[in-house]
Amino acid sequence: MKLTILGCYAATPRTITNPTSQVLEIKNRMFLIDCGEGTQVQLRKNKIKFSKINQVFISHLHGDHFFGLIGLISTFSLLGRTTDLHIYGPKGIKEIILLQLRLSNSWTNYDLYFHELESEVSETIFEDDKVVVTTIPLKHRVYTNGFLFQEKLGERKLNMDAILNHEIESCYYQKIKNGKDISLEDGRIISNTRLTFDPIQPKSYAFCSDTVYHEAILSIIENVDVLYHESTFLESEDALALKTLHSTAKQAARIALKANVKQLILGHYSTRYDSITVFQEEAKTIFPEVLLADDGKTFEL
Amino acid sequence: MKLTILGCYAATPRTITNPTSQVLEIKNRMFLIDCGEGTQVQLRKNKIKFSKINQVFISHLHGDHFFGLIGLISTFSLLGRTTDLHIYGPKGIKEIILLQLRLSNSWTNYDLYFHELESEVSETIFEDDKVVVTTIPLKHRVYTNGFLFQEKLGERKLNMDAILNHEIESCYYQKIKNGKDISLEDGRIISNTRLTFDPIQPKSYAFCSDTVYHEAILSIIENVDVLYHESTFLESEDALALKTLHSTAKQAARIALKANVKQLILGHYSTRYDSITVFQEEAKTIFPEVLLADDGKTFEL
Repeated sequence: MKLTILGCYAATPRTITNPTSQVLEIKNRMFLIDCGEGTQVQLRKNKIKFSKINQVFISHLHGDHFFGLIGLISTFSLLGRTTDLHIYGPKGIKEIILLQLRLSNSWTNYDLYFHELESEVSETIFEDDKVVVTTIPLKHRVYTNGFLFQEKLGERKLNMDAILNHEIESCYYQKIKNGKDISLEDGRIISNTRLTFDPIQPKSYAFCSDTVYHEAILSIIENVDVLYHESTFLESEDALALKTLHSTAKQAARIALKANVKQLILGHYSTRYDSITVFQEEAKTIFPEVLLADDGKTFEL
Repeated sequence: MKLTILGCYAATPRTITNPTSQVLEIKNRMFLIDCGEGTQVQLRKNKIKFSKINQVFISHLHGDHFFGLIGLISTFSLLGRTTDLHIYGPKGIKEIILLQLRLSNSWTNYDLYFHELESEVSETIFEDDKVVVTTIPLKHRVYTNGFLFQEKLGERKLNMDAILNHEIESCYYQKIKNGKDISLEDGRIISNTRLTFDPIQPKSYAFCSDTVYHEAILSIIENVDVLYHESTFLESEDALALKTLHSTAKQAARIALKANVKQLILGHYSTRYDSITVFQEEAKTIFPEVLLADDGKTFEL
């Protein structure tokens, strides 16, 4: 699992910082999460192939999280894309995109599928044989979801020593990987646990931005490997965080601690602070494993 | 008059080039012309004060000419703008902007005025005491206007030698600047032309993008000081230019020649060409005074 931060600063794009967008590569799928203005240029800068993106997840309809989407959709079209594109985002996103395509008389030459979200409770919005994506309802000034990306549990790994020892033929291997016990010709039954090792533990990533401190998300993100949680402000601005329904670095750390996650990545920094290391310092007083997102940074999870 | 090119490349924003946007400074007014994605960052890079922009002119609703507008409007709001903003653009632009503001629950704290255009003939859309702006109906795949910016003729310049010679009192100076003759106490009438020099010749700038070769614009842009005319392609791609309703460098030069303009600036280059100097070379075979727009370049007119 690899996370590339295209942008992680709050509010407006500037010459040196970009609004929210990130690419999660998981089991050879490339998920684009949020799409602030300038995302298509950030994708180019980070050498991410446009054609590998088939799903886009939009957390909410504030500009710094979606103003780059119509441009990306148009560019896909200009580049001759023919593969379907799926957009997951709040109700209204379809109207915004289709209105602009209609008025510019520029329909896409690929199929565009909108999966509009309006549920107030967590729901599974994407699932294939390797990955499941569920929403994390957040609390912000407009309807907002975080997204939980979970690898599915893979096949069990063959214990070849044991298998050869019992002279089991290779035509049974898939059955064994699937967790079945094996009956030998002499009638003995060999339990699957003696023939296999546990599969690699599936990884999980939770993206939570934008939101006020919101303990209702704990049960959804419990034990995830990596939590990206917004920290627009420091604790010194906690009143402002509450008023604007954003979080402080300390609050993000408290969520990470209570949800028992392995690692916390901070982002969505207000540009009022000169340095972002202060966010890490503040969060570490609560939770030890804190990383800082920054534009162009990648995390191998 | 000063023209700053924020972006002048066709189609999609890339790491090194930007879609169409430019700022025309004329008589201390700052007019923003078109607003492709990334315009707000280009304004910052070129150190143009956001607060000085009060009028935005959008030629047409193709993404590379307006996808940056909603972001700019939002950023103005986040920066605490209170001054009115006037948007001049094709019918539909109001719906696009208001829909996005409504869905993001982010109304501006300044007044936003939309002047929607749908006339097929040239019309005056802005006028104050110093400047007039009229549309230049163009021919493209969607409804498109160019814009003609004209300084108004200023006051006549006082000929101080003649004025002192006739012992004319200073309370008459404004009357003289306005072109009036003066009656002396002895009854003689001094003609204004003996007391003044002609005012500085007002400058004019015509922006024409995007359009196919279209002679109908000649009467509107005749004798302008500077014509910016799109040249998406070279003559070698003239069939493609006709098909997509764009122009070649040679066609832009032919328009400049026939309209008897003083200078031609080329722009809106397709990114298929390795260098933009070929556009200048081709245009110069028809018309001598050819300049090349490029992102970040300024022209003092």
